[in-house]
Amino acid sequence: MRIFLVGASGTIGRAVAAELGSRHDIVKGGSKSGDIRLDITDPASIGAAFRKLGKVDAVVCAAGRVQFAPLDQLGAAGFELGLKDKLMGQVNLVLLGRDHVADGGSFTLTSGLLDRDPIRCGCSASMVNGAINSFCVAAAVELPRGLRINAVCPGVLAESMKDFGPYFRGYQPVPGARVALGYAKSVEGAQSGQVFRIE
Amino acid sequence: MRIFLVGASGTIGRAVAAELGSRHDIVKGGSKSGDIRLDITDPASIGAAFRKLGKVDAVVCAAGRVQFAPLDQLGAAGFELGLKDKLMGQVNLVLLGRDHVADGGSFTLTSGLLDRDPIRCGCSASMVNGAINSFCVAAAVELPRGLRINAVCPGVLAESMKDFGPYFRGYQPVPGARVALGYAKSVEGAQSGQVFRIE
Repeated sequence: MRIFLVGASGTIGRAVAAELGSRHDIVKGGSKSGDIRLDITDPASIGAAFRKLGKVDAVVCAAGRVQFAPLDQLGAAGFELGLKDKLMGQVNLVLLGRDHVADGGSFTLTSGLLDRDPIRCGCSASMVNGAINSFCVAAAVELPRGLRINAVCPGVLAESMKDFGPYFRGYQPVPGARVALGYAKSVEGAQSGQVFRIE
Repeated sequence: MRIFLVGASGTIGRAVAAELGSRHDIVKGGSKSGDIRLDITDPASIGAAFRKLGKVDAVVCAAGRVQFAPLDQLGAAGFELGLKDKLMGQVNLVLLGRDHVADGGSFTLTSGLLDRDPIRCGCSASMVNGAINSFCVAAAVELPRGLRINAVCPGVLAESMKDFGPYFRGYQPVPGARVALGYAKSVEGAQSGQVFRIE
């Protein structure tokens, strides 16, 4: 398969490239590095990226930013970042990429376990993750041509614990290689409209 | 209790007023009617409403619009409506209303079963409902002074089947009076961070 991997340079992206790269042709996408540069917060940039990319069999997104801050300090701008970046950035990859994915191909988006297992300062992340999961469940029933869509909902990454450990005390860290299996199941399997929890 | 009921004139709002009105003092809020007028898409309007309102023991929101349309026709504006209205309108009621709710008081927001039981044309609604549920789960762990927050996640209303029936074939309609019990449980009970599914 030819797979467009957005966010290829991140912790999850590298793990996904390692898992899928031995069996498939990975086209790496990113805001600052990769084969194709794109800004997922800008629909024009997404459109240009897909025109350059041509046809693929799968789109995987492991990119998307949210603001972490106490609820009383998040404010409008804090929530706006997550809605525009991790949420609508990924949604727009689906809307604008759909015609570039071959019949029976797939989209795999990234959410995260804060959707139902919250931490302090994580209110925007929780909201966005819940939205992504439900979007994938819903979009699956409307995509044409046998296109599939799933969300991978990872726990806190083992590789991220050195930076985020204090926020996630008591959470079982999950190695990136284990999380990457969720993306393989989505891309290489047959399911659609699923939330693959890798916790 | 003194309860601010936003969206009091809608199908759910009227049922909630009927359920809670016999035991509590309901201040009705709405965009076109009610004791206090407000536009939940405008933070300035929400702020002005709370200043006029003064102190309450509970805020219930049964308002919020989303666009229903086929996924390939929703477009940026279609998604934007739901994010700005049903999602951030309700979130901003919490952020801007917090200081007006007495210690131990509560917020109750409204989502809906499309978060995990999707229909055609419902992609934006699904996304927004998932976001609201996860927001409530997360905000509950950060609210101060014993404030509580829950989501009521109703099925399709029996009273709405004459308009929306064709979209919801096979769904069990739920009478508004039954849905209103979820709001009573949230306002008069002790739980927080819950999604009360009334399906």
